[in-house]
Amino acid sequence: MTETVQNLGENGYLVTYVAKSGSFATLRMYTDKLLTFDIHSYEVDNKGRAAIETLCNRLEEKMKDVLRGNIKRLKRLPAIVRGGAIDRYWPTADGRLVEYDIDDVVYDEDSAYQNIKILHSKQFGNILILNGDINLGESDLPYTQAIMGDGVEDYKGKEILILGGGDGGILYELVKLKPKMVTMVEIDQMVIDACCKHMRKTCGDVLDNLKGDCYQVLVEDCVPVLKAYAAEGRLFDYVINDLTAVPISTSPEEESTWDFLRLILDLAVKVLKPTGKYFTQGNCANLTDALAMYEQQLNKLYCPVEYSKKVVCVPSYAELWVFYTVWKK
Amino acid sequence: MTETVQNLGENGYLVTYVAKSGSFATLRMYTDKLLTFDIHSYEVDNKGRAAIETLCNRLEEKMKDVLRGNIKRLKRLPAIVRGGAIDRYWPTADGRLVEYDIDDVVYDEDSAYQNIKILHSKQFGNILILNGDINLGESDLPYTQAIMGDGVEDYKGKEILILGGGDGGILYELVKLKPKMVTMVEIDQMVIDACCKHMRKTCGDVLDNLKGDCYQVLVEDCVPVLKAYAAEGRLFDYVINDLTAVPISTSPEEESTWDFLRLILDLAVKVLKPTGKYFTQGNCANLTDALAMYEQQLNKLYCPVEYSKKVVCVPSYAELWVFYTVWKK
Repeated sequence: MTETVQNLGENGYLVTYVAKSGSFATLRMYTDKLLTFDIHSYEVDNKGRAAIETLCNRLEEKMKDVLRGNIKRLKRLPAIVRGGAIDRYWPTADGRLVEYDIDDVVYDEDSAYQNIKILHSKQFGNILILNGDINLGESDLPYTQAIMGDGVEDYKGKEILILGGGDGGILYELVKLKPKMVTMVEIDQMVIDACCKHMRKTCGDVLDNLKGDCYQVLVEDCVPVLKAYAAEGRLFDYVINDLTAVPISTSPEEESTWDFLRLILDLAVKVLKPTGKYFTQGNCANLTDALAMYEQQLNKLYCPVEYSKKVVCVPSYAELWVFYTVWKK
Repeated sequence: MTETVQNLGENGYLVTYVAKSGSFATLRMYTDKLLTFDIHSYEVDNKGRAAIETLCNRLEEKMKDVLRGNIKRLKRLPAIVRGGAIDRYWPTADGRLVEYDIDDVVYDEDSAYQNIKILHSKQFGNILILNGDINLGESDLPYTQAIMGDGVEDYKGKEILILGGGDGGILYELVKLKPKMVTMVEIDQMVIDACCKHMRKTCGDVLDNLKGDCYQVLVEDCVPVLKAYAAEGRLFDYVINDLTAVPISTSPEEESTWDFLRLILDLAVKVLKPTGKYFTQGNCANLTDALAMYEQQLNKLYCPVEYSKKVVCVPSYAELWVFYTVWKK
């Protein structure tokens, strides 16, 4: 092992240890008595993890001894695994580091619109990740229930429009409730195919065909479809917007995310019956600025609307999520 | 900036960059084309974070350019903050790294039994952390509901014994349901006092006094209390075990965690009416071995019992949790 000590003057010391194996460690001593120690080790199949745990234990003992118990705080963090076949780190929408219990890459493909991953979590089941954002886990029925109005709506005999929703979760729950007709408009056939195969706890058999007794799936960009419905005066009892947070539509109006969101909102409200309801997911509860901006958009629609919101715990998200209900005033 | 290149032969290269400010970076090139780059920076009040983001952006651009797009995967992780007043990293029971949105240390004291922390999370409210384990957030009514049988039990006129439960959550929810008498046995007065002051969304005013019309709080080790109840033949309709996962009792029987768990189980079943129910939290859903061992203990009690379990999403846990119901055969 090679030890290199660098005196950084008023900024303390940096000591680097390099082992022949290529593992290395950095010890940084700051002048305010903070000490950080990082071990970087190249491991195949986690074989060396026990040895590193032992090393860390010894290091802790040694430091307690050398500093004679004068340690105010001592914290050891779980190892961060980089470069493996499985990526376990999927930060929250508010930018926090979260390690998931991912143990298998079930699906990983680029469609014309986005990167589509389905990763297996031991506890959450398969999780759909679009462009790096966790969309839905098989554990996440609470998401679907929240975006459907928490079980208090009577969907029997109703006409419903789903925007997006390629995982099939909303469609699967809706068709159980004997609606008159559910129309789902999802742009990405590859999402539908991947979820049909790998998210069956979420979508059941509802994506096996794009058409059923009381539903149809249109594989199209929802913007022109909404425009056509608005033009012909077609109205729905419910519009459920389950589009991804970051728009993937290629409409010319999409100059900014907010313009796109307002465009969708305006069109959705246009195809809503006077007594109709519009459901959508908003954002994580912590992004209060983004939520406030979304609510500002609601005041800029072609017709006045009212809204309510609720905060929901979606199991695989590791953060609370806000859902909106919007209706015509 | 000082650059030090170390040729590690068949193990690749290690390059260390040290700035005059004391910030440093390590670039490790592995021979299988994995490249890790770590920036360590000493920041006061997060001031330099934007500059580091810019540096990372430039680095990504540069690497894409140098490698002519031949990058299969490129992942940037959120910065890990160490040594600050606020510790945001509270690993899950199954050992995964989770960064919480902690923005304030509300309480941090050592009692005779354990370290007690109450940290404020923007989304979860105040969170009680005992010996480094997240116990309960103010967001976590689902925990309390789960350990009370999910709202299907009729507690009216019943006699209930709570083991532990110092945060007052179970007691607060129970007294709303007009029980005959709730007896709570919590060993740590400091937990009660801290939660009474800082977890009021969880405990309401129920901990303001240790006695109410239909409840009493005994600040004692529950083991001798249970033994006394068993000796005098006192029986309860419900026993709710809300003790911490790692025992803090000092009973002589506590030779191992499992012995302690079985001791508590045996005593709890002894003070249970023939029709009574015992509720407890088990462990995180991923620790299947620990759950199986717990279930083995259930087969070793002084009298035969049956049990059911359910998996519950507790908002602040970032992992699914198993709860048990146990009853006499």
